[in-house]
Amino acid sequence: MHSAPAFGIEPAAHLLSALATEYPRGSVFLAVVDPGVGGKRDPIVIQADGRTFVGPDNGLLSVLWQRARRRKCFRIAWRPKRLTSSFHGRDLFAPVAATLAFRRMPRGWLAAKESPEVLFDPADLGKVIYVDHYGNCVTGMRATSVSRNARIRAGGRLLRHARTFDAAEGPFWYENSMGLVEIAAPRASAARLLRLRVGYAIRIAR
Amino acid sequence: MHSAPAFGIEPAAHLLSALATEYPRGSVFLAVVDPGVGGKRDPIVIQADGRTFVGPDNGLLSVLWQRARRRKCFRIAWRPKRLTSSFHGRDLFAPVAATLAFRRMPRGWLAAKESPEVLFDPADLGKVIYVDHYGNCVTGMRATSVSRNARIRAGGRLLRHARTFDAAEGPFWYENSMGLVEIAAPRASAARLLRLRVGYAIRIAR
Amino acid sequence: MHSAPAFGIEPAAHLLSALATEYPRGSVFLAVVDPGVGGKRDPIVIQADGRTFVGPDNGLLSVLWQRARRRKCFRIAWRPKRLTSSFHGRDLFAPVAATLAFRRMPRGWLAAKESPEVLFDPADLGKVIYVDHYGNCVTGMRATSVSRNARIRAGGRLLRHARTFDAAEGPFWYENSMGLVEIAAPRASAARLLRLRVGYAIRIAR
Repeated sequence: MHSAPAFGIEPAAHLLSALATEYPRGSVFLAVVDPGVGGKRDPIVIQADGRTFVGPDNGLLSVLWQRARRRKCFRIAWRPKRLTSSFHGRDLFAPVAATLAFRRMPRGWLAAKESPEVLFDPADLGKVIYVDHYGNCVTGMRATSVSRNARIRAGGRLLRHARTFDAAEGPFWYENSMGLVEIAAPRASAARLLRLRVGYAIRIAR
Repeated sequence: MHSAPAFGIEPAAHLLSALATEYPRGSVFLAVVDPGVGGKRDPIVIQADGRTFVGPDNGLLSVLWQRARRRKCFRIAWRPKRLTSSFHGRDLFAPVAATLAFRRMPRGWLAAKESPEVLFDPADLGKVIYVDHYGNCVTGMRATSVSRNARIRAGGRLLRHARTFDAAEGPFWYENSMGLVEIAAPRASAARLLRLRVGYAIRIAR
Repeated sequence: MHSAPAFGIEPAAHLLSALATEYPRGSVFLAVVDPGVGGKRDPIVIQADGRTFVGPDNGLLSVLWQRARRRKCFRIAWRPKRLTSSFHGRDLFAPVAATLAFRRMPRGWLAAKESPEVLFDPADLGKVIYVDHYGNCVTGMRATSVSRNARIRAGGRLLRHARTFDAAEGPFWYENSMGLVEIAAPRASAARLLRLRVGYAIRIAR
């Protein structure tokens, strides 16, 4: 997913948590949204409910960590011969992810760590976390948390639920393919219609 | 091809028809341009001149269907355990396409169907159907239908044929790599020069 | 790398030279930036320090050619049955690259050639050669040529070196992951801040 919003660690953490459960157990994920690359944060590995995640300890893996029932955390102790200051995705995380995928982790590459250090709030996030190329706006709210009768306030309007794009006449909300509340419009860009961007607040109207 | 124009079923049907013949026989295509996902149209499978296509019965597969000499149509009767309302590409079409690629279709997954229900006109389409990232404008006209001496009217100008980009001095037309008439300009964007977009009409000048 | 700047043969030649050394020996590269496709330039194959390159003799392969210690050049004598005028990448170069990757080159496909005909200056290029989607500006200057104390003039400003994005407070330069001088800004677009584009000059300030 190369189109995750630049520098947006928190929205990426919510996106990754939702997307990951669509993949089979045993999957290995390499994820970096990492404006602090080359700085002090640890490189880590997380095992969460049967899936494995490799990335920086900057909060990116912390939403899925806190939502997992069975989980383990490791610090990556291994360092490659050549570690550039700006591309740990290639130099450090990719070899570790490949090694995990082959299930042949050499002794000493990983060290025990109790938990990630940077922990974002794992509750539903009432914000737009991603806008796709149609202008559909994914939010950080899980659809299981929201009644189908609820209306959602976004961009100054109150939106009703619809099950499909064709069932709606204007902007609406629906449960998207990864289980999140998404704001969309039939054959139009909800982002443009409602002037929404990543980070903008949405609210459930009571 | 993730850059097909959003919501444009007819241009996509012409693009797919032209692109498909560039692939070897035996290829399996999964194609969705599907603003009506979750609505009433059937999911279908088409066999056409040795290639197989999986997608919605919304016209997308209908141009290649009508141009094929040997062809068969099926309705997809199988349904996955989980069918989201907005991502049949993943939930429904992808498992069927993968099963077809393995040549192991379980009994009952496909049912006979005489023909797709939505049928677009399969004749050459005198419109821009795709604009690539250079600004080259692909049309729905097959180059075999057009004399090399013909001039093409597009964006208020009359364009002559050229065989290569370097042989032209300004906007021109040529037979592109998939056999369609394409409007281009040497080291410039024809879309910007001629103010063309997907859907705009082009005409052969007599 | 589909995002190389359109029509920019010289910046692409510098990019390719820097990127190629990140790949293992034995790699085969198919590279085209080719506004002259269908014109008179030869299709060529270059072997350079253990890697193989397939592309047009328009300068694209000439920077890495001149920087190589062990090298050979060939003209591609083979022609496919169908050679469209605009897509030699698919029709001509791809089959040759695939054949090279399988290490089964039929007799007569390649002919000896002393050297590419179009030869760009292989020295460091004091220009922006690529702007990535963050707005980071890659230059054609190799970082080994530049002292860490040097300041670089770009877009009317003098930039200091920083090792990481977090270590800088505004626009800075650093050695990027392929060994080139890159101009960047922490959590911002250096291209926008400094109004830089591909082709713009940068200079080492003395």
